[in-house]
Amino acid sequence: MEEEKAEKVIAADEQQPAPQLLANQNDYLEAGIHIATKMRSPGMKRFVYKVRDDGLYLLDLKTIDTRIRIAANMVAAHAAKDVIVTASRIYAIVAAEKFAEIIGAKFMRGRVTPGVFTNPNRADFTEPKLIVISDSRNEKQAVNEASKVNMPILALSDTDNSTKFIDLVIPSNNRGRKSLAFLYFLLSREVLKARGDIKSDQEFTHQMGEFEAKVESKPMRQEAQF
Amino acid sequence: MEEEKAEKVIAADEQQPAPQLLANQNDYLEAGIHIATKMRSPGMKRFVYKVRDDGLYLLDLKTIDTRIRIAANMVAAHAAKDVIVTASRIYAIVAAEKFAEIIGAKFMRGRVTPGVFTNPNRADFTEPKLIVISDSRNEKQAVNEASKVNMPILALSDTDNSTKFIDLVIPSNNRGRKSLAFLYFLLSREVLKARGDIKSDQEFTHQMGEFEAKVESKPMRQEAQF
Repeated sequence: MEEEKAEKVIAADEQQPAPQLLANQNDYLEAGIHIATKMRSPGMKRFVYKVRDDGLYLLDLKTIDTRIRIAANMVAAHAAKDVIVTASRIYAIVAAEKFAEIIGAKFMRGRVTPGVFTNPNRADFTEPKLIVISDSRNEKQAVNEASKVNMPILALSDTDNSTKFIDLVIPSNNRGRKSLAFLYFLLSREVLKARGDIKSDQEFTHQMGEFEAKVESKPMRQEAQF
Repeated sequence: MEEEKAEKVIAADEQQPAPQLLANQNDYLEAGIHIATKMRSPGMKRFVYKVRDDGLYLLDLKTIDTRIRIAANMVAAHAAKDVIVTASRIYAIVAAEKFAEIIGAKFMRGRVTPGVFTNPNRADFTEPKLIVISDSRNEKQAVNEASKVNMPILALSDTDNSTKFIDLVIPSNNRGRKSLAFLYFLLSREVLKARGDIKSDQEFTHQMGEFEAKVESKPMRQEAQF
């Protein structure tokens, strides 16, 4: 099923209607990458494309796409060891950890201990030059610690996320399983392309499924219930 | 006088009190890089450090500094020929054109003709991958044209600038002669460092004065009047 998805992404690329997008618009929409929440922080206002009748905010797809490219370029501009990726919830953890693995970056799960970027006496002290945040609410401590040392902060940001201290907001649905998988799939591919490690989308050998949390066994997600 | 200034920047670097800043804090403050306007657009709210008693907004210096570094990395991530720099007013033109010259980017003065990034039949058609804007109000057309083709947009932005379509806001005083010179001086140096063209600040041979408009003869600016 994941293979099917990945094939679709490649096939769609070949008949790209909007050549400047990284993936076919339909694939973006299917992954729900633009489906936000019913809350909107002031900093996220500019990324809202429209509000649905049920009050759900929808994000502007072109901006999401452009910013994935910018983020990839920013990550690629640093040595892999100088980049740190954080995530706290399971869908984000699986996707972000796979991203970190593919690009060779550090991964930090859950809460960041105060001082981890500022106190050289700590055993876990580390000095990354760029941090990628999956959700600024869940990883608030990482955002705070990074801002103390002026570390550039990239963050997947849903409409209800605060943009305080975030240098590059990647407006996106950062809660959905498919959306997170697609975001980190594209980020991984674009970082490798920006570095010159691969020349084309086709050379990227990873599948969407590798970025997706396997949580089918949990009652909440059992398809049989519907 | 310019040489004196540049010497001061270097000397200050050596006794850097906040090692994460690109320049000594006093030099930043002296150039007035953080002195904004009395108007504030909604998108610029987050960059305001405080409001002075006379109503003038002051920008957060750490954010300015971090974003100059990010911008430099973004520019360095592209081939020089794929970067375009725009400016419309004399202080910005002199500084931005020098920046473009040093890093080998294209420079576009004044208004951008509609279609310049979208219509391949035009004689002046060009397809840059990244655009640096000196003032989004003066270069509104460039912003609009770039946004049509999803080109990442970096912009020096004062508190009264709109942040619509801007991907990376570099909060800054983008009207002052010294401020613009300092901004583009730092951007030039950091791009060369990020590319590996130079290894240290000391290897950067350009002076602040090269980025400053020579407009002493204009009545408005005659110091004798005050």
